[in-house]
Amino acid sequence: MADPRFFRVRGPFTLATLCGVCEATLADTTAAMTVVSDVAPLQRAGASDLTFLDNRKYVAALATSKAAACVLHERDRGRAPPGMALLLSRAPYRDYALIARTFYPEEAPSAAQATNATVDPTARIGRDCTIAPGAVVGANVAIGDGSTIGPGVVLERGVVLGRNCRIHANVTLSHCIIGDRVTVFPGARVGQDGFGFAPDPRGHVTIPQLGRVIVHDDVHIGANTTIDRGSGPDTVIGAGTRIDNLVQIAHNVVLGRGCIVAAQAGIAGSTRLGDFVVLGGKVGLAGHLTIGAGAQVAGGAGLMDDVPPGTIYGGMPAVPIRNWHRQTLALRRLVKKDQKDD
Amino acid sequence: MADPRFFRVRGPFTLATLCGVCEATLADTTAAMTVVSDVAPLQRAGASDLTFLDNRKYVAALATSKAAACVLHERDRGRAPPGMALLLSRAPYRDYALIARTFYPEEAPSAAQATNATVDPTARIGRDCTIAPGAVVGANVAIGDGSTIGPGVVLERGVVLGRNCRIHANVTLSHCIIGDRVTVFPGARVGQDGFGFAPDPRGHVTIPQLGRVIVHDDVHIGANTTIDRGSGPDTVIGAGTRIDNLVQIAHNVVLGRGCIVAAQAGIAGSTRLGDFVVLGGKVGLAGHLTIGAGAQVAGGAGLMDDVPPGTIYGGMPAVPIRNWHRQTLALRRLVKKDQKDD
Amino acid sequence: MADPRFFRVRGPFTLATLCGVCEATLADTTAAMTVVSDVAPLQRAGASDLTFLDNRKYVAALATSKAAACVLHERDRGRAPPGMALLLSRAPYRDYALIARTFYPEEAPSAAQATNATVDPTARIGRDCTIAPGAVVGANVAIGDGSTIGPGVVLERGVVLGRNCRIHANVTLSHCIIGDRVTVFPGARVGQDGFGFAPDPRGHVTIPQLGRVIVHDDVHIGANTTIDRGSGPDTVIGAGTRIDNLVQIAHNVVLGRGCIVAAQAGIAGSTRLGDFVVLGGKVGLAGHLTIGAGAQVAGGAGLMDDVPPGTIYGGMPAVPIRNWHRQTLALRRLVKKDQKDD
Repeated sequence: MADPRFFRVRGPFTLATLCGVCEATLADTTAAMTVVSDVAPLQRAGASDLTFLDNRKYVAALATSKAAACVLHERDRGRAPPGMALLLSRAPYRDYALIARTFYPEEAPSAAQATNATVDPTARIGRDCTIAPGAVVGANVAIGDGSTIGPGVVLERGVVLGRNCRIHANVTLSHCIIGDRVTVFPGARVGQDGFGFAPDPRGHVTIPQLGRVIVHDDVHIGANTTIDRGSGPDTVIGAGTRIDNLVQIAHNVVLGRGCIVAAQAGIAGSTRLGDFVVLGGKVGLAGHLTIGAGAQVAGGAGLMDDVPPGTIYGGMPAVPIRNWHRQTLALRRLVKKDQKDD
Repeated sequence: MADPRFFRVRGPFTLATLCGVCEATLADTTAAMTVVSDVAPLQRAGASDLTFLDNRKYVAALATSKAAACVLHERDRGRAPPGMALLLSRAPYRDYALIARTFYPEEAPSAAQATNATVDPTARIGRDCTIAPGAVVGANVAIGDGSTIGPGVVLERGVVLGRNCRIHANVTLSHCIIGDRVTVFPGARVGQDGFGFAPDPRGHVTIPQLGRVIVHDDVHIGANTTIDRGSGPDTVIGAGTRIDNLVQIAHNVVLGRGCIVAAQAGIAGSTRLGDFVVLGGKVGLAGHLTIGAGAQVAGGAGLMDDVPPGTIYGGMPAVPIRNWHRQTLALRRLVKKDQKDD
Repeated sequence: MADPRFFRVRGPFTLATLCGVCEATLADTTAAMTVVSDVAPLQRAGASDLTFLDNRKYVAALATSKAAACVLHERDRGRAPPGMALLLSRAPYRDYALIARTFYPEEAPSAAQATNATVDPTARIGRDCTIAPGAVVGANVAIGDGSTIGPGVVLERGVVLGRNCRIHANVTLSHCIIGDRVTVFPGARVGQDGFGFAPDPRGHVTIPQLGRVIVHDDVHIGANTTIDRGSGPDTVIGAGTRIDNLVQIAHNVVLGRGCIVAAQAGIAGSTRLGDFVVLGGKVGLAGHLTIGAGAQVAGGAGLMDDVPPGTIYGGMPAVPIRNWHRQTLALRRLVKKDQKDD
């Protein structure tokens, strides 16, 4: 069970109810009224818990699991111990996620404005919003209904925030227009000046950064991540995109819908990612590139050229991933050969 | 036009006035009294806008631009459409920057101290300073005239700040002496302890970090960047140096004047950079290195040795950039050869 | 002498006293009552200062040092100038650290709760704690005796903090249980949601992150570092581990005791490090790896496989460090050969 100091579990729920929140179906409908009281991993689940099997590496653990119920793929149903209720799913991880969210829905803090928050009189705050202690809301800021502004958050002048956003502690937002259901984790910085200047030995000359950051609906922005505003065009984060911690997104970058950007990746100015692009941890992208929809880049890679849609790249400088693996092997062979020759 | 929620445009200005703020000259002086009302990129500029051409990749776009005026190099004047006023420049990007700053000068917030800032009675605050809500100014801090301390900023005991500095939201400064016209972007951390300890299986023993961070005039420090104070000697950032977001600068590092450090670069302890060194994104430098003046390091490189002045390095471990390109090519050839041999 | 605006020196002390705080012994006990008034590096030490020699690169500087006393290894005693008092040590850097800490002990701010801190009435604050201005302490937080909560720090609901912790400015802690004598540097984020979701073209589905971050005693966490809480299991940082700035530690990662993690390293989900593992700067570790006790990874390396205890790895993808050096050399030879062949 999750630590009650931090988490409050709902339920218990019948399996019928839980099938109702996702797309899984019961292998045996007589289990519909079976009640489960929590979720837990395969090995730790007890007799009143629901679990899941997604990664087939853990098939062996299924056989000995004590869970009352398991979300799994049709093909694995034969591996379950007798008596375990089975929720058959084409996407067990997704369906489990939906069930886990039923037990642990996101906490909506009670709507309130702290007496020691600083809210400019020209700011427009929607209904059922929370403004935490120490938050600073600037002139002409607009916050949609049901949004939460955490402690120490700074919303600079003119920022627009949609509905049901969660802006966690110590975040800074400026020069940005943010959609609905956007989550920003602690310490992220969105909308500051891009790294734009004309280099000059007499003193580099700053170029005014006249664009914004447009963040579409359902985006997540990780802790201490930085997203600079555009220099004239905007920086854009497409709907549903997930950005991890300590990521750098430079001015004029455009991310498509549903992209996944892992921690410490960095995208230089004016590069464009299509929809559902996946960047591994620590990936670096040069500026002015075009990354096609659905492309994937392996962790640690350094991209210096465009990437066609649907391809997978790796290495530094990055190449199609099969070539990168071949380079790695060739280098290992070469070392062996050199040693023989010596 | 830039979003009026975030930017206020000045002007309109005559081309004569705009030539006066930079080093460009009119190709045809009869255009001196032509009035322009805003700046815009080549493709988006309208009939009352001024634009610029710097990257020759965009020469074709010049021919169809609707801009009233364009800052460009002498060599490109023949490519402009008839009727466009031309401002001839040896450094079009720089001259455009100076003009753009005339339309969009940095906003000086109205000098004021928020009632809910916390300012120690021993702090000395110059004239025309702004201390925003939630800022905390410690004992014996000194702030020069015209400086701005953003919301949630923490200035620890004894910090010295020059004139006309812009310390953006949620920044932390400690143990540092900062010059004039320094800009620190949101969430940067300057002056905390360096990573100094004597490793010991019984428990690593912290070495007191007894130096400071000295930041000279006109430096920019990016969002969420970290600069540790010296261990005894100081950490030093030379005048006019520009540091991007999420950069790590360890204790005792010395950066010369006018350096450019791109996002996510990291410099280990006691390494010294000469003047006007350029580090690309994600570059890593080992400790105790000397990087000569004017040297450049390509994005993603890992430097383990000194770099002579004026050279360009790349790769991991880094080598002169031509060698790195040769390594890349040699590896690609090797893969092809291996495949043939198989 | 360290800048008195930032540091206050104690002393003077006799060498007998200083030998008492560490494991060094006087080469000549007649120097026991010699008094020194400060610590300083070899080249800068004056006639009343104590210095040290650890890195033998600086042996030559010893001969001309003006220091009154020096901590050094037995083998180097013959290189000291006549008249210098010698403190013989098997671990000169460690013993010097202990002496330097006697001159410059960590400042304990006077215990007090700022009037403009926000402390929930259900929080339990120990004796002799400092809560700085602008700090926000949530419901049911528990803080041990002698701990310091810096300006702008946010402790979310239920966080548990041990004794004598130092939580520096603008840190955010949530969902975590923290031991005694833990130091968290400015802007670190501990306990936010891990990057956990089921990817789905209809919209990625967030998995509730139901674990915590457990930080054991004597850990240091660097500026702007991010440590995500576990997804069900906990994220764990072992006792005495030192983490530098801008490090990313993903959900379910387990670090052993006494690990050293340099700046900008990143560890992906569920990877486990044994005791006393050392990661160089910018190292990246894939998820679900096991790194054996005492293993070391060279800066910039990218680890994709498990690492046996006590070994040293480097490169991308990482291999035993000798192999990496051989790869580097082989590649250089290959370039030379290609050039000859051309």
